[in-house]
Amino acid sequence: MLLPTLRQAVLEANLELVRRGLVLYTFGNASGISREEGLVAIKPSGVPYETMSAADIVVTDLNGQVMEGTLRPSSDLATHLEIYSHFPDAGGVAHTHSEFATAWAQARRPIPCFGTTHADYFNGPVPVTADLTPAEIASDYEKNTGVAICRLFDRSGKSHIPAALVAGHAPFCWGSTPADAAHNAVILESVARMACYTVSIAPQAMPLARELHDKHFLRKHGSTAYYGQPQNPK
Amino acid sequence: MLLPTLRQAVLEANLELVRRGLVLYTFGNASGISREEGLVAIKPSGVPYETMSAADIVVTDLNGQVMEGTLRPSSDLATHLEIYSHFPDAGGVAHTHSEFATAWAQARRPIPCFGTTHADYFNGPVPVTADLTPAEIASDYEKNTGVAICRLFDRSGKSHIPAALVAGHAPFCWGSTPADAAHNAVILESVARMACYTVSIAPQAMPLARELHDKHFLRKHGSTAYYGQPQNPK
Amino acid sequence: MLLPTLRQAVLEANLELVRRGLVLYTFGNASGISREEGLVAIKPSGVPYETMSAADIVVTDLNGQVMEGTLRPSSDLATHLEIYSHFPDAGGVAHTHSEFATAWAQARRPIPCFGTTHADYFNGPVPVTADLTPAEIASDYEKNTGVAICRLFDRSGKSHIPAALVAGHAPFCWGSTPADAAHNAVILESVARMACYTVSIAPQAMPLARELHDKHFLRKHGSTAYYGQPQNPK
Amino acid sequence: MLLPTLRQAVLEANLELVRRGLVLYTFGNASGISREEGLVAIKPSGVPYETMSAADIVVTDLNGQVMEGTLRPSSDLATHLEIYSHFPDAGGVAHTHSEFATAWAQARRPIPCFGTTHADYFNGPVPVTADLTPAEIASDYEKNTGVAICRLFDRSGKSHIPAALVAGHAPFCWGSTPADAAHNAVILESVARMACYTVSIAPQAMPLARELHDKHFLRKHGSTAYYGQPQNPK
Repeated sequence: MLLPTLRQAVLEANLELVRRGLVLYTFGNASGISREEGLVAIKPSGVPYETMSAADIVVTDLNGQVMEGTLRPSSDLATHLEIYSHFPDAGGVAHTHSEFATAWAQARRPIPCFGTTHADYFNGPVPVTADLTPAEIASDYEKNTGVAICRLFDRSGKSHIPAALVAGHAPFCWGSTPADAAHNAVILESVARMACYTVSIAPQAMPLARELHDKHFLRKHGSTAYYGQPQNPK
Repeated sequence: MLLPTLRQAVLEANLELVRRGLVLYTFGNASGISREEGLVAIKPSGVPYETMSAADIVVTDLNGQVMEGTLRPSSDLATHLEIYSHFPDAGGVAHTHSEFATAWAQARRPIPCFGTTHADYFNGPVPVTADLTPAEIASDYEKNTGVAICRLFDRSGKSHIPAALVAGHAPFCWGSTPADAAHNAVILESVARMACYTVSIAPQAMPLARELHDKHFLRKHGSTAYYGQPQNPK
Repeated sequence: MLLPTLRQAVLEANLELVRRGLVLYTFGNASGISREEGLVAIKPSGVPYETMSAADIVVTDLNGQVMEGTLRPSSDLATHLEIYSHFPDAGGVAHTHSEFATAWAQARRPIPCFGTTHADYFNGPVPVTADLTPAEIASDYEKNTGVAICRLFDRSGKSHIPAALVAGHAPFCWGSTPADAAHNAVILESVARMACYTVSIAPQAMPLARELHDKHFLRKHGSTAYYGQPQNPK
Repeated sequence: MLLPTLRQAVLEANLELVRRGLVLYTFGNASGISREEGLVAIKPSGVPYETMSAADIVVTDLNGQVMEGTLRPSSDLATHLEIYSHFPDAGGVAHTHSEFATAWAQARRPIPCFGTTHADYFNGPVPVTADLTPAEIASDYEKNTGVAICRLFDRSGKSHIPAALVAGHAPFCWGSTPADAAHNAVILESVARMACYTVSIAPQAMPLARELHDKHFLRKHGSTAYYGQPQNPK
């Protein structure tokens, strides 16, 4: 995706987070990457969504240097860049403080895969990072947050679980496009909510059997997928 | 109910699920059956509700062969067909991932009949299926899901409890029409929500006494019903 | 309040219950009494709120005999009549299946007075009825429900706690007018919700000290009240 | 801020509390102070928000004597005045019965700082007051409520935690302006909600490490802040 399409897509993804009730005031941010151009487009820091336009979206290079735009980029930019660097198939990143996913992050518990809704999107529990060390907090905090996220995944370059919880903070999600990243953030919140209710109803609830987990993930993903319409890749 | 009335009723039932907040994105699906014509009408797979019209509803025969429509039917079609086959009085089926009913399904706990709201609609606890075996998951998964649901009920052909929870998945509901199935799905979610709060307030809460349960079910159902207006069969 | 003012007030009270999210479909009903005329106006049974008009409100005498209207009165009429008979200062009654108050009723736990919001309206815990006996269920069920409610209160004729939970069923509230009864039903639901969260945060939470409880109740009620404006009795 | 700007700002802050779902009926009130003029503007007691205009806002001196307006000021005025007296940097105060913050107040538990959302706004747990004595309740109750709040903080005159929970009652928040106080009330409710979910998921959840807590608070506050845009002090 090239600018200015990317810029518009990033605006849309940010507004989707608002429409779905995932953000309060200016919390949360979505970005997108143009790998061809070596550019990232991201929400400006602390700007109200109501008045945000595509022109407010900040464009940086892959080191976070601002290339276009007069506003400061989101303070979480360095975390986004780290995720893009780790996952070559990520085209968008979304970060929110959506309340149930954040509660799991605060509880420092991975979200178990209790059901097929989870399995449709995340091929395993949604993991939670280790706590950052005081040194990692003191310097390059946002970059180190990204490093802690990426450490949870192997170097395969595939995002079978396009989400992670940052301990004591909140979720980050990614996807093939900014819209896909925002979509995954919405699903994650629903999955987090249902998992919270599940442990409330049955504190010892067991995760889904591996066979069923795979069945559902593969119904929606990969060459044997049969969910949706043929022209619809998802 | 004959086509095209059925087709319109199925569209309406799907939209009712959205209006009542039971579905997220394209999750969930409702269908209806014309037993006279041997046809089932069902939501297409993975199509957004906002733009869906009666023409998008897929019509199949009782073996799931598409008879009308250019879109793929819901991937859960085979489960619907199994329910129609088991319950001769079912005219509609609704499947959602509504969050509280899904939480009970994920917890693998039947929803106890804690109160008269439940008893008004479901003449007993809402049961949860056994886990499918790896073989049942590997082949004919959706049909086997339907078989697991029907195994919970006897062969009386009467639906005194027009709902079941699929373990680790979500609820399926049915009713005399597509609208009635969707209505039952809405009630089930409210009942599931109240049951979750009830066990949170009193983990050892006891189900309703049998006499009161029967009283409420029979206030609304059968020849001695006295709820609603005479011209209103429900 | 005389007909037809009463009829309109009863319609309004029923609609307020809908607006505040206390009722699902046709659940719930509000009524009002004209003690001068010996008449009660109540919602018809099982009629949708969207199309209800003042003309649909059913008028009965104090024995439940229909005096005006062509529809059946709410099946809970006999419970309302019993409440009017017990509390001479009750001018309206509201019954809902609002989800948190119902959860307490299902849990068979009185709602403790945990805070001043509760104390502002209910001068003590909101009590829960004893279970009805099989004989009380078998005959005159709705009247016996009212008797069970009134048994919770003494014969003083004053409604310092204008609400009760029917075990395994749902709340009934009352007030000086139909609007006041509906208002109390809305407050009760909020109080029930906060009490549920309170026991979730602190299972051993203690009720409010008696002094603070009285202080708040008397800030709003009686001759020493100083909340609100002088011309506003509440 | 001078009258009549203050009056308008107080109206706006009160309406923001309504828009964000923090108040039911007439519960809750926001005020603002003009330290230059020695005046406080506050919501009138028990007046519906729907019809409230800037002209209804009551203006008092710092002893609570009404200087402008024909309505009674909020019955919580004396609590507001005590907060203004204690915190020289407070320009606005907001009081609500928002349901999750109130639940923590009712549970008499400080809200632990479980995550960065909390740390962004409150530089420590949100404290809960001691119970008032019967004598403090009997006379000057509202003033003594303010005294109990202020006792939780030292005399530094800085509001690093611009919120407190009154035991068995509800939260009070403050800020540099009426809008800022209302904003903090909205954040507090979200933080209280997430903390409730957190202890539900992990009853033994640990608060955020001090280093991370400071990092987030200082990202948004003080001379080294780098969140938001340079022209935006918050």
